[in-house]
Amino acid sequence: MTTRAVGDAKIAVLSGGVGGAKLVLGLSHAAAPERLVVVANTGDDFHHLGLHIAPDIDSVVYAVADLADQERGWGRAGETWTFMKALAGLGGEAWFNLGDGDLAMHVERTRRLADGETLTEVTAGLCQALGVKIRILPMTDDQVATIVDTPDGPLAFQNYFVRDRCAPKVTGFRFQGIADATPNHSLMHDLASGEIGSVLIAPSNPFVSVDPILGLPGLRAALRSVAGPKLAVSPIVGGEAIKGPAAKMMGELGVPASAAGVARHYAGFIDAMVIDTVDRAQEAEIRALDMEVLVTQTVMRSLDDRKALADTCLEFIADLGSR
Amino acid sequence: MTTRAVGDAKIAVLSGGVGGAKLVLGLSHAAAPERLVVVANTGDDFHHLGLHIAPDIDSVVYAVADLADQERGWGRAGETWTFMKALAGLGGEAWFNLGDGDLAMHVERTRRLADGETLTEVTAGLCQALGVKIRILPMTDDQVATIVDTPDGPLAFQNYFVRDRCAPKVTGFRFQGIADATPNHSLMHDLASGEIGSVLIAPSNPFVSVDPILGLPGLRAALRSVAGPKLAVSPIVGGEAIKGPAAKMMGELGVPASAAGVARHYAGFIDAMVIDTVDRAQEAEIRALDMEVLVTQTVMRSLDDRKALADTCLEFIADLGSR
Repeated sequence: MTTRAVGDAKIAVLSGGVGGAKLVLGLSHAAAPERLVVVANTGDDFHHLGLHIAPDIDSVVYAVADLADQERGWGRAGETWTFMKALAGLGGEAWFNLGDGDLAMHVERTRRLADGETLTEVTAGLCQALGVKIRILPMTDDQVATIVDTPDGPLAFQNYFVRDRCAPKVTGFRFQGIADATPNHSLMHDLASGEIGSVLIAPSNPFVSVDPILGLPGLRAALRSVAGPKLAVSPIVGGEAIKGPAAKMMGELGVPASAAGVARHYAGFIDAMVIDTVDRAQEAEIRALDMEVLVTQTVMRSLDDRKALADTCLEFIADLGSR
Repeated sequence: MTTRAVGDAKIAVLSGGVGGAKLVLGLSHAAAPERLVVVANTGDDFHHLGLHIAPDIDSVVYAVADLADQERGWGRAGETWTFMKALAGLGGEAWFNLGDGDLAMHVERTRRLADGETLTEVTAGLCQALGVKIRILPMTDDQVATIVDTPDGPLAFQNYFVRDRCAPKVTGFRFQGIADATPNHSLMHDLASGEIGSVLIAPSNPFVSVDPILGLPGLRAALRSVAGPKLAVSPIVGGEAIKGPAAKMMGELGVPASAAGVARHYAGFIDAMVIDTVDRAQEAEIRALDMEVLVTQTVMRSLDDRKALADTCLEFIADLGSR
């Protein structure tokens, strides 16, 4: 495979919510839109108040549409919260914070799904309305629900993540419905036709953001059979997750909370890791897993950080593809 | 019948939206809460964006809960509009204005209905949460949809009322589903057991707010058989509707847009009319319909106006009942 081939081919980007969305935003500035096929986790989608809420899709869409709130780190900028206050006043379920503008996504998505559109079609329609040019695909149009196992029993993901603030100890994960789910048709088409030249796992939670995607029947094998490089950006930097419970989960599962731990999690699937400079000491350990390693600045605080990491990843992909 | 009997008995108040809600608010200050059985029109309920919207119920609930916006004349005070802006940005249907706080009512109502509660139960639950002590009943738990006939064909009520701003000429009205609808069970129980001592039609649109109620199978007869007085407050003052298209509709239907025109509309059902001082000249014409007439100040600008008209109506009911 030549550099040019990989450099032209589409990149399948596997992403969860906020962390992955940052890199996807960077990539949307760094690559031609037609090169990017973003596959968003839907394992944390849930039905709440009668609405279909898809947090990871929305995080990616908001980031790329430049609607994301930078300070709060989730949801929309310029958000108001009148709905939640009124809902609480009605004795409604108020543990999951829904901004007034954010609600429009959920209401419109729910309406379109009820009208018979697939989640892929709905997402494409919302992206088009918001001027998002890259393709953002739900991992599946079927229902898959991430369940977090704890010593006190199983928890629906958002109950664990939002309601219980990730406090319960994690003993494992299950993805309800996954055995009967079909991976996104558009993604599978691109994979089957050889249009995907590389696979990039964004810095997302390996257990609850990426594993649901890789667990879809046939998808891991189809992605693995992509001719070009498969790589992951570590979501763990200096032993901590940039955001979310990944490091806590690793500790509770008896896995080292480290970039090397993430690499080991993906061993046999990916060929290369992008790790932060602070984790340089783990390079040899990761190389021992038969992976290439790129050490760079991976913490994305500014838009420039996002673009820079995206550029670095694209160069690394081209470089790996040319070897 | 003695004054005391009527003065103690429950009053069935038939109400549409804003105009009726003003009088209901006044009544909630003027009478013991257990005396008031408010029957709200649901003919203009509709499904929009997947939500069950019940404008007249909400207008009455917001008024009595002291949540109504006084200046705008509809919806909630302190409202924000972030949802509508975001929905428009998604290319969603934005012709029906839904405030962010108002949305909570629709989302929570829709959720409870989907969970199997009746509209009566949902309304009671929302009223309880908002501290509303009077009973507000939907006219039916079944679906009835007001259709406005126009020279260009039929229009769903909200399409006529909100989307088309009442511009189309009206040739008639139909209430889809009404033949199969059952009047509110709780109301029918109170009527059958003789607990209702009088019927008060609030100053609401006769055609699209009150006629749907009176058109429910068996309800007109059951209300007519109430032993005490049946009366209406004219929504037409000085030839104009205080709010809404009632006068325009009367003109288009070839009916005089006057308090007397309203009285004629209800002739055979009510025994008495409350009309405004500016319409004093119509008193004889209305009396000729075999109705008692009370002439008073009926325009409700302030809360004191609402209380005063409520007091006047209660005194008139007691007076009529003692004759």
